[in-house]
Amino acid sequence: MTDTLAAFLDTLDADIRARADWGAVADYIPELARVDPAQFAISVALADGRVLSAGQSDTRFSIQSISKVFSLACVLARIGEGLWRRVGREPSGDRFDSILLLEQEQGRPRNPFINAGALVTTDELLAGRAPREALSEIIGFVRESAGDDDIHIDRAVAASEKATGYRNVALANYLKSYGNLVNAPDLVLGTYFHQCAIEMTTRQLALAGRGIAGLPGAPFLLSGVKRRRIAALMMTCGHYDGSGDFAFRTGLPGKSGVGGGILIAVPGRASVAIWSPGLNAWGNSKCGTEAAERLARFTGWSVFG
Amino acid sequence: MTDTLAAFLDTLDADIRARADWGAVADYIPELARVDPAQFAISVALADGRVLSAGQSDTRFSIQSISKVFSLACVLARIGEGLWRRVGREPSGDRFDSILLLEQEQGRPRNPFINAGALVTTDELLAGRAPREALSEIIGFVRESAGDDDIHIDRAVAASEKATGYRNVALANYLKSYGNLVNAPDLVLGTYFHQCAIEMTTRQLALAGRGIAGLPGAPFLLSGVKRRRIAALMMTCGHYDGSGDFAFRTGLPGKSGVGGGILIAVPGRASVAIWSPGLNAWGNSKCGTEAAERLARFTGWSVFG
Amino acid sequence: MTDTLAAFLDTLDADIRARADWGAVADYIPELARVDPAQFAISVALADGRVLSAGQSDTRFSIQSISKVFSLACVLARIGEGLWRRVGREPSGDRFDSILLLEQEQGRPRNPFINAGALVTTDELLAGRAPREALSEIIGFVRESAGDDDIHIDRAVAASEKATGYRNVALANYLKSYGNLVNAPDLVLGTYFHQCAIEMTTRQLALAGRGIAGLPGAPFLLSGVKRRRIAALMMTCGHYDGSGDFAFRTGLPGKSGVGGGILIAVPGRASVAIWSPGLNAWGNSKCGTEAAERLARFTGWSVFG
Amino acid sequence: MTDTLAAFLDTLDADIRARADWGAVADYIPELARVDPAQFAISVALADGRVLSAGQSDTRFSIQSISKVFSLACVLARIGEGLWRRVGREPSGDRFDSILLLEQEQGRPRNPFINAGALVTTDELLAGRAPREALSEIIGFVRESAGDDDIHIDRAVAASEKATGYRNVALANYLKSYGNLVNAPDLVLGTYFHQCAIEMTTRQLALAGRGIAGLPGAPFLLSGVKRRRIAALMMTCGHYDGSGDFAFRTGLPGKSGVGGGILIAVPGRASVAIWSPGLNAWGNSKCGTEAAERLARFTGWSVFG
Repeated sequence: MTDTLAAFLDTLDADIRARADWGAVADYIPELARVDPAQFAISVALADGRVLSAGQSDTRFSIQSISKVFSLACVLARIGEGLWRRVGREPSGDRFDSILLLEQEQGRPRNPFINAGALVTTDELLAGRAPREALSEIIGFVRESAGDDDIHIDRAVAASEKATGYRNVALANYLKSYGNLVNAPDLVLGTYFHQCAIEMTTRQLALAGRGIAGLPGAPFLLSGVKRRRIAALMMTCGHYDGSGDFAFRTGLPGKSGVGGGILIAVPGRASVAIWSPGLNAWGNSKCGTEAAERLARFTGWSVFG
Repeated sequence: MTDTLAAFLDTLDADIRARADWGAVADYIPELARVDPAQFAISVALADGRVLSAGQSDTRFSIQSISKVFSLACVLARIGEGLWRRVGREPSGDRFDSILLLEQEQGRPRNPFINAGALVTTDELLAGRAPREALSEIIGFVRESAGDDDIHIDRAVAASEKATGYRNVALANYLKSYGNLVNAPDLVLGTYFHQCAIEMTTRQLALAGRGIAGLPGAPFLLSGVKRRRIAALMMTCGHYDGSGDFAFRTGLPGKSGVGGGILIAVPGRASVAIWSPGLNAWGNSKCGTEAAERLARFTGWSVFG
Repeated sequence: MTDTLAAFLDTLDADIRARADWGAVADYIPELARVDPAQFAISVALADGRVLSAGQSDTRFSIQSISKVFSLACVLARIGEGLWRRVGREPSGDRFDSILLLEQEQGRPRNPFINAGALVTTDELLAGRAPREALSEIIGFVRESAGDDDIHIDRAVAASEKATGYRNVALANYLKSYGNLVNAPDLVLGTYFHQCAIEMTTRQLALAGRGIAGLPGAPFLLSGVKRRRIAALMMTCGHYDGSGDFAFRTGLPGKSGVGGGILIAVPGRASVAIWSPGLNAWGNSKCGTEAAERLARFTGWSVFG
Repeated sequence: MTDTLAAFLDTLDADIRARADWGAVADYIPELARVDPAQFAISVALADGRVLSAGQSDTRFSIQSISKVFSLACVLARIGEGLWRRVGREPSGDRFDSILLLEQEQGRPRNPFINAGALVTTDELLAGRAPREALSEIIGFVRESAGDDDIHIDRAVAASEKATGYRNVALANYLKSYGNLVNAPDLVLGTYFHQCAIEMTTRQLALAGRGIAGLPGAPFLLSGVKRRRIAALMMTCGHYDGSGDFAFRTGLPGKSGVGGGILIAVPGRASVAIWSPGLNAWGNSKCGTEAAERLARFTGWSVFG
């Protein structure tokens, strides 16, 4: 199986490069807008400890919203379920940066994977500490999960988002107006922009996702209940208003980032990281989504049996 | 395991009856409003062919929206994927009978499990035939799936809903105004009210769900791809604006009905039917949801491993 | 002044015909879709009793939503202010046939000039009577206001709308689901489709509007308070989501109909009826709106001095 | 008439104080939250040059959103109609600080009197200048209109709003994210908070409103067309989602502020300023609205004749 899978990943990489239908990179963060869309990488960390890769699996990319999985894991691990008093667990049916529902629902974000909900999660993690400490916790969690200390924040990307991330500034201030941020908006935003600017290779990201996939070899970080809950949120909310479609096409829980990354948990079997920076209409990786669908079809991996 | 599970189901039944916190029955369909809320039943059809039950598992109840799973299965089996030109596959974030998104999205329902989407599915199934023929197909599918011909439509419930189902009349006419119904609204509504009025016991329903759960003994009706797609839709959209919460709490794909039933697919392992007519704030069975969560915790069944 | 105004109206008529930029007729009512858009008429009933006209002022057209002014006047005159328990008095910011706000505001229409609010007004007018009687009251009011008995309902238009008015059927049933219709939806819709199908010439309509404009010679029908309130509603809500723009451009209260008519009250000075069946993006008469703006500029008529 | 009106104003003042049903002051700006709600003043500037007052007409209050009328007048006077490329002229149907429609309509505010639209108006007025210059222009306009140089900005109120005005910060950043602010959000917000913090007595405000009411003695500042357009906007949008109700009850164009002030233009006849800091459910002065309605009834003033 491992041999066949390795061959399949190579074919997949070749097919995607041959077709060259890459989508467009996100343009609202200047640093990300300069990334070449014609890139692809995939890494699969298996239950037996092996990691198979194809494409540019040693190129670092900005994990962006995939960091929401790690900040949520940190909050659930250290603080527990109190977060749900401040954030819901329902798909929003709206864009990742939507502010509309926040007005209709009086400042309570629908789930921790849309930007508004992730800001509240980061606010919960801050808990009166300095941003540096909260960031240390997140990056420490990621490094430990991946078993790799060579994972860092790209400060140029963080600065770029800080300079132009008007919509996130709007969201944070809107949350604050409803009393659903404890810390000052600027503090939360600074922390959030930095956590989003963590950069990793697909190989590192696949390794970091082993805990959520519940693979045997993963560093012990999350209880089974928490792991399953995070996976449930990834499946219902992980791709914003394209979550239903991703679940329909792959049958797997995943979380996308605007940098073009996707982290997929195949419970008990594999942790998959895919990267291709061109996006589709929902703001999710275009070739990454296609690769995920083909991988699911080839392997028969689906949580639905 | 089977013995332990049987004992657990009995305990579950006793616990729920002891607590007697039943919720309120749906009041917008007069026939359903007369049902005693203090009722409970659960049936589990296992991969080995056995069916375990507790509570009133021989009492028939109105499956209501659970019928949407069967009409969708019929359409996908006979007609194929053309339905997706007319209906989306995303959670709506709104109530089961919401008309709001339908205006914003120009008559294209978000998914086949909210009422608007189910009306389009039924319209697709009609395809120019008489309502009687489409209904025969649905009820034939249900009987064959359950391996039981003693499954019928409660005509009093259908008539009751026809007399007072103003919101569904509104939805059908609204869809028609956008050209997203082929047949006359009254024809589609008549068919829809009758399919919702199918009545079954939890034992029959658990058996009928074996195909979607992909159990070995199930009558061959659906390909693996179709089965997994239906399960994905159940997980992301099966409980309306409470879908995310159900997935978070149980880790299982389920579909609820306003009559108080819930059908749950545990892929490869079990098909579960629960019934308790009192509802929670989202219009899903109150004790049924609690029973589903306790069953998932007891068995460790979760698609997320 | 009268001579100059007469000359202006002729010039206006000639200009509009010369430019021939008519807009498109409403297409959702088959009978109206067959009307030639290249038509124009204007009539001005003055305080001194004279009526000046230009264009096809003897051609009858379907007044459609302008009838909402008359049904509202009937309800306020005979039943009084109880209507406001069921309907609001605020601009909706949405299309004339929007159902979205109705869901958000639990079945209470924003104002009596959007379709949902007009259906409630007609329901109030029915008050347990047969549709025939309510219709007699409206048409009697119109005839008396105009001082002209030769005003009738075009039954072909009423039948056409009944056959295809799915969105109005949806609105009526939706209102009923919230208990905000007393009568059966079909009865209200039948009455409503017939009141909308009243046909008049601009000359007749200008005369019928004298009461609302408070002209000295008008048949005594409405108290000053009621007249002013109807005018206020026309100004804030009379052109749906184009109401603000109409007020900005003309400074006058008006009510449009999808048949291309506009009724304008110039308090104490004139009652104006304009007709041109081609519509703009908001569903209001394209050339009619332009003619109203030019008339306001020429005469200096504006309620804002 | 003047004597009778003077007597009426005294009676009105006495009645309101006797009833003592004041409403609650705005609580989201700490400085305003400390104002005693049990206050009332009214001033009427007449066409003959006289000013009649009753109550605390020499007490200064924060004009807040009434400043939007003056900033709009400045923009229209100096820059012209280009503003309408960036802001609409339709009632929004939503709260003064709503952000919802801004998402649905891609960053284009519905009208210049909701907060989002006023921020764009202030941005237009800034036009690359320092905030100090734009503020000088607004306050200069107000002083010239009132014929009174003793009108100032309350810097404590401006600072208070700057410290806690999270929702306005959200709106400005949201507008910027759509490219509908030219200047930096902080610059626009600073200017806006200061213009809102202008404080005036009702006597000063009534005098300042003479230009918009088109009174003979007013300093020449606005053309008739601009004046009528501003009045039309006041009538359709001046009281947020209570605009229709205010027009219905008074028949007059008015603009409210969250400090409890209302400016009313009675075209050609009077400019009225009312103040009472307790608010109703729409955020408009409770006793101020009642006083406006009683004044309209007593005088017969209504733009609708």
